Amino acid sequence: MPFAPFDWIDDEARRRAAAGLVRALRPRSAEAGLLDLASNDYLGLTRHPEVTVAAAGAAHRWGAGATGSRLVTGSTALHAELERELADFCGFEAALVLSSGYAANLAALTALTGRGSLIVSDAGNHASIVDGCRLSRAETAVVPHADPDAVAKALRSHDGRALAVTDSVFSVDGDAAPLSALAEVCRTANAALVVDDAHGLGVLGDGGRGALAAAGLAGGPGTVATLTLSKSLGSQGGAVLGPARVIDHLVNTARTFIFDTGLAPAAAGGALGALRLLRREPERAASAREVATALYGRLTAAGLTAVRPDAAVVSVRAPSADAAVRWAADCRAAGVAVGCFRPPSVPDGISRLRLTARADLTEEQIGTAVSTVVATAPREALVPLS
Amino acid sequence: MPFAPFDWIDDEARRRAAAGLVRALRPRSAEAGLLDLASNDYLGLTRHPEVTVAAAGAAHRWGAGATGSRLVTGSTALHAELERELADFCGFEAALVLSSGYAANLAALTALTGRGSLIVSDAGNHASIVDGCRLSRAETAVVPHADPDAVAKALRSHDGRALAVTDSVFSVDGDAAPLSALAEVCRTANAALVVDDAHGLGVLGDGGRGALAAAGLAGGPGTVATLTLSKSLGSQGGAVLGPARVIDHLVNTARTFIFDTGLAPAAAGGALGALRLLRREPERAASAREVATALYGRLTAAGLTAVRPDAAVVSVRAPSADAAVRWAADCRAAGVAVGCFRPPSVPDGISRLRLTARADLTEEQIGTAVSTVVATAPREALVPLS
Ligand SMILES: Cc1ncc(COP(=O)(O)O)c(C=O)c1O
Ligand SMILES: Cc1ncc(COP(=O)(O)O)c(C=O)c1O
Repeated sequence: MPFAPFDWIDDEARRRAAAGLVRALRPRSAEAGLLDLASNDYLGLTRHPEVTVAAAGAAHRWGAGATGSRLVTGSTALHAELERELADFCGFEAALVLSSGYAANLAALTALTGRGSLIVSDAGNHASIVDGCRLSRAETAVVPHADPDAVAKALRSHDGRALAVTDSVFSVDGDAAPLSALAEVCRTANAALVVDDAHGLGVLGDGGRGALAAAGLAGGPGTVATLTLSKSLGSQGGAVLGPARVIDHLVNTARTFIFDTGLAPAAAGGALGALRLLRREPERAASAREVATALYGRLTAAGLTAVRPDAAVVSVRAPSADAAVRWAADCRAAGVAVGCFRPPSVPDGISRLRLTARADLTEEQIGTAVSTVVATAPREALVPLS
Repeated sequence: MPFAPFDWIDDEARRRAAAGLVRALRPRSAEAGLLDLASNDYLGLTRHPEVTVAAAGAAHRWGAGATGSRLVTGSTALHAELERELADFCGFEAALVLSSGYAANLAALTALTGRGSLIVSDAGNHASIVDGCRLSRAETAVVPHADPDAVAKALRSHDGRALAVTDSVFSVDGDAAPLSALAEVCRTANAALVVDDAHGLGVLGDGGRGALAAAGLAGGPGTVATLTLSKSLGSQGGAVLGPARVIDHLVNTARTFIFDTGLAPAAAGGALGALRLLRREPERAASAREVATALYGRLTAAGLTAVRPDAAVVSVRAPSADAAVRWAADCRAAGVAVGCFRPPSVPDGISRLRLTARADLTEEQIGTAVSTVVATAPREALVPLS
């Protein structure tokens, strides 16, 4: 037998090609060529001089890396400062910074559950939550999207430790979770509530304090938030926020915290710079929401089908995966970068364009984006206007 | 019933306290206070001006964050450059950069296996490999440490897709895996070999090209390496190296790649700066190994029990978890930072001090480190010299 342990990969590649589902990397240049409605830089802070100077300054002051696990040499005073200010800003007792939002979800879900516990997870939750459920060894009940009654029913069926987990804003459609109802259901069942506020931080709540602050749930005794520093805060990294005892527990038990190198100082510094800028300019959060609403209003007025945005993500329905890919490519060719979600990245098999609002988009840029998306739309995407 | 979904955490905290196993964060200041033998900065590059300038420059040029998934907006020309140079340096066809070494292991193990496949995993493998096995849904056979015959036997027992996975240098004891024998066993069984070279890159092989290059296995058709950019390269991030078809497959299927924000430009820039510096100063790799050998020689000459280092990690046996904690604290009080591994972080329940060699330690610093570790040693750790 010839030595060929990876031949099966070619078969899979052929199947993907036949289905039109090949993904390829397309590295961009440093010069902004396209009008960006595809990134998650909701507040336009990634390249803000104050943020890049904070990132660069941290690299100079602390070094390019954290040099070890946060428990050994990887905790700097900068990490501690970022944790204090994040917790304070979002209204939680304590915070823990990890190397990514993905790692933060894995940490929270594995450390707060285990064999014999139950996780009730929304069917639309992010991949990192799904992986957290799988890693946790807890029993997982996947419930229909945004359905507090289903969560209540699943919690009632279980005896013992339980938590419910949800995105605050779902990354595919940009719709918000029914947090107040979920919190009520969890309170009744004595279950914890873990909310991934990746797309809420910086956009929702007073001055961008996030979805839990907006719902009056921040700092609750049974509430945990997971965050990413890579979207509104324009950097990299993740965080878990909650009661101090929960954070201490994670420090002692969460594998993706303990066995991972600490977040690079430049990323911590950049995120802290962005957070301080947001505190000084709280109107950025409302601007991101207003841009999203404007995009939605004009796209639907032109006959496209979109989901009313609860935050800064605007999801536009495409007739098929192929059509979505072509549509996004046509937008790109016309100078506008938009996201394209299609199977297997979408839970329901429906392909969409995904536009992200940025707080710093000008009226003219919004106009260009809308006219480009409409002009390139496949005919089947346009509802005949009566 | 009062709402108290986290009360169980206090019970666990009390149990940890009673067992003397409480971990706490101790943020450090920017000014180097202690002599560092605890970090993984093997080549002393984290704070090298060339590396910090490269990190800071990337933040200025590209922004503080990658702004999205590598498949959407998160791939920059800088990421592509780093991937090309990493693959070239280590002798592989292609490379893929992820946000951490942890994510790289999760990506490789989940994307290259699945239900019905077999993973044969060394009992001493890193937590991120263990989690990769758990997430993969493959059948996992954990085999005794560094035992190619056991790997062969496990592979023979399985029909279908299989791979063996091992650390190249084990992070607890600093011993090397029997890579040539493992490769032979895998070839016979038509199984892939995945090697986590976190502690080999920059230290082993000609000019630090890593354990696979050292063993003549780099670039093999069935060989995949996972790396971290956070140790010898002084930065943050991870990578998977292998045949181009394997890397394409990961781009299309690895969840911790697809659903994660791209590595921050500053981290990519810092790692690339370190890599280029290492190419220019290849003697750094040998220096790290020589410092480790010197530490080992002097510590054992003084009567301590240590593992002969195969790379830059020197593991010194402690009589108990309590004694190890006190020993490390005494070293720290005397100005020397050393690592302390104890349950549950050690697979065999044996506690140790963990000293990491750095290429840039001076003869005087080596002397200080050795005399401090010996002077603070618990009596039971010192073998009476005959
Ligand atoms: C809802 C959600 N959670 C978690 C993550 C992961 O965060 P990170 O990219 O920082 O790993 C993302 C996006 O990447 C996300 O959209
Ligand atoms: C053997 C090994 N693999 C993987 C990792 C994870 O790499 P990272 O810290 O970049 O996530 C580490 C250390 O952190 C390690 O020691």
